[in-house]
Amino acid sequence: MPDCLLKTVATVATLLATLLTFPALAQVTADPQRIQARIDKLATFGGTADGGTSRPGFGEADKQAREWLLPELAKLGLRIRVDAAGNIIATRPGTDPQLPAVAFGSHIDSVPNGGSYDGQAGTVAAMEVMSMLKAADIATRHPLELIVFVAEEDGLFGSAAMIGKLTADELDFVTNSGRSAAKGMDFVGGMSGKVAMAERSAEELAAFIELHIEQGPYLDDAGIDIGIVEGIVGIEQWNITVEGSANHAGTTPMNARQDALLAASKLVVAVNDSVNAVGGRLVGTVGELAVHPNVSNIVPGRVELSLEMRDLDSTQIADAFSRIRERADAIAEVGHVEIAIEHALSHTAAPTDPQIQAAIRAAADELGYSSMTMPSGAGHDAQNMAARWPTGMIFVPSRDGVSHSPREYTSKEALAKGAEVLYRAVLSLGK
Amino acid sequence: MPDCLLKTVATVATLLATLLTFPALAQVTADPQRIQARIDKLATFGGTADGGTSRPGFGEADKQAREWLLPELAKLGLRIRVDAAGNIIATRPGTDPQLPAVAFGSHIDSVPNGGSYDGQAGTVAAMEVMSMLKAADIATRHPLELIVFVAEEDGLFGSAAMIGKLTADELDFVTNSGRSAAKGMDFVGGMSGKVAMAERSAEELAAFIELHIEQGPYLDDAGIDIGIVEGIVGIEQWNITVEGSANHAGTTPMNARQDALLAASKLVVAVNDSVNAVGGRLVGTVGELAVHPNVSNIVPGRVELSLEMRDLDSTQIADAFSRIRERADAIAEVGHVEIAIEHALSHTAAPTDPQIQAAIRAAADELGYSSMTMPSGAGHDAQNMAARWPTGMIFVPSRDGVSHSPREYTSKEALAKGAEVLYRAVLSLGK
Repeated sequence: MPDCLLKTVATVATLLATLLTFPALAQVTADPQRIQARIDKLATFGGTADGGTSRPGFGEADKQAREWLLPELAKLGLRIRVDAAGNIIATRPGTDPQLPAVAFGSHIDSVPNGGSYDGQAGTVAAMEVMSMLKAADIATRHPLELIVFVAEEDGLFGSAAMIGKLTADELDFVTNSGRSAAKGMDFVGGMSGKVAMAERSAEELAAFIELHIEQGPYLDDAGIDIGIVEGIVGIEQWNITVEGSANHAGTTPMNARQDALLAASKLVVAVNDSVNAVGGRLVGTVGELAVHPNVSNIVPGRVELSLEMRDLDSTQIADAFSRIRERADAIAEVGHVEIAIEHALSHTAAPTDPQIQAAIRAAADELGYSSMTMPSGAGHDAQNMAARWPTGMIFVPSRDGVSHSPREYTSKEALAKGAEVLYRAVLSLGK
Repeated sequence: MPDCLLKTVATVATLLATLLTFPALAQVTADPQRIQARIDKLATFGGTADGGTSRPGFGEADKQAREWLLPELAKLGLRIRVDAAGNIIATRPGTDPQLPAVAFGSHIDSVPNGGSYDGQAGTVAAMEVMSMLKAADIATRHPLELIVFVAEEDGLFGSAAMIGKLTADELDFVTNSGRSAAKGMDFVGGMSGKVAMAERSAEELAAFIELHIEQGPYLDDAGIDIGIVEGIVGIEQWNITVEGSANHAGTTPMNARQDALLAASKLVVAVNDSVNAVGGRLVGTVGELAVHPNVSNIVPGRVELSLEMRDLDSTQIADAFSRIRERADAIAEVGHVEIAIEHALSHTAAPTDPQIQAAIRAAADELGYSSMTMPSGAGHDAQNMAARWPTGMIFVPSRDGVSHSPREYTSKEALAKGAEVLYRAVLSLGK
């Protein structure tokens, strides 16, 4: 058969598949009760008295949760393996085993004293998709993979291993569990000594989609069901030192002071002004500040502070930084102090794949769910995955925008809407 | 003899005494070399590599310095006792043993890693006065007392004991030496169990004068020899808590933040503005500030900071505080945070005795030394003494206003001028 005919046959087959799938799609809905039951079950591992979850990756509770999860995934008819890093990969075969897999998932570890939705919502939504497929007995051409990444909150360890960028230094990093990443991987069933084997080639996956709670207030405030993530913001961090002169708070006249805290305070205000002046979705934060000698009756001699800015668009960050730099120079001159700004860290923004964005939008539209395009201000495994594979993210609302807190909450109905969008997006990519 | 005649006789005797003393005064000068030798000797006890002195009260070096000092004082013909608190009191008898003593002195303990002049300058100047009197063989009607107060830098322990205001709690206070005040007193030869015996009645002393380095820049800047201290400033301290809401630095939009550090920074600037608006000699300081959770990628949820203001005139402090309070309310409203200001500590201003001020001024004028009237921004044993006895203070210049630092410095010539002023003031009060 000539190529053109082959293509025509393929197109017709796709159309037929779509027609065959469509009635099934209309009938298959997510089950809020099943979703809630899985969320609640996960929350029993490391659950805290105030209704939150404290389950750092590589900890005892994490291991227990994984031991519950593996047979649950097996019950969904999935073929399960744990890679060298400790990532759980649960595969549903496709009708064409030669095709790359369409992958989706998230993580189940939490920050210490965190909530029961960050990561867990995405894992449970992925399980729901597998349950829906199983119930409707739907076949896809591409294999499908449910991935549960290991130790996301400690620094995206699992996804970093999967794209082969985990360094030896990072294996020594002591995680929130108290274990080094290497010891933690071995503890949960990985093989830290062979972690390089966790890397996967570009050809293995066709796409990756992560559903996650927004962790911000935009969807909840606007009453919108689905966030279509256009990218994960870039992060720039600086360490700033303000050097003045420590002196006696009683005997040093106001006009003879070189007060490092006064100058640092003006700088904190300047950061806020500059970020607001640039506007858009840019955020800038001074989260850390230390005063020396930090004694009530001594004029502060030195202050160290952090500066962090995030935006999808690096020129926004650069614009705000140049404003801050200018204000810092003026503050230093007036206050007779020195302000040193040292660049500390850079995470490049990770845009998501436009076709996956379109698939998510189409799914929401078909279901009659409202959606909006937005950046992700937080880091996710998806940002590592985006470096190698076409990647998308689906956000569901976080009540009051609260995250990393026992007050973290998303309703089972909102999660079900997200799972249905994920289901349709996965099918449209995997058919 | 009727009363009026008695008074006349007394006045004539005083005049004669003045005439008899005056020629001696003109001949007796302080010896800068002897002053420097004593400063240098003291600096050998706890001396640091950078030329400073680290000799906390009640420490080993403090004890060693005292062991050197006691025989030195004995060589000056003084009768020595150590009171229950550990204060050294060295007495030179007067011709009328019924009269109350004229006392002068300072302390020899230093802050950790401090200098060789704070306290030590006053002690050595007092020794110089005793040396001058001995050399000139001058008798005074009043007994004279050289007092070396114990543990000044830890909180005026010696002078507090002398006016009977040392509490049991304060005896348990762990000083910079690592010893509790009680253990420290016993270590240096006091009797902490009988510390109440260190209290002295109003009738025992006629006056107290302390010579001290200024610890500020006024005299050095203006090139003036002698500061006539009009009083030791009052101190008011507050603890301030700014309560916002900790949140994710990536996902929380700028306009949805309740950033406790941003509000606290505005407050630090407001303190500076308010203090400068009131003006005069008022000083206000935020010396201590702690951020929670103090993590670079979390919007600060809570900040605790100190506020301290000092002035001789309490209405100046009250004026500035009401401005700060008003600014705090506005900052809290704009920033959606709560600002709680809690009064923590109050030291009433201690004005010095006008007649002693006049005696110091007259002494400086007679010697042709320039002088200016000024408050003391730092606390001194003199402020405790002023609560019970007519008290005065003589300041000598601090180079660059630096104190509590190895860079603390006053020249031997400047110290000699101060000692000569102290000598004349003591004689005019003690004759």
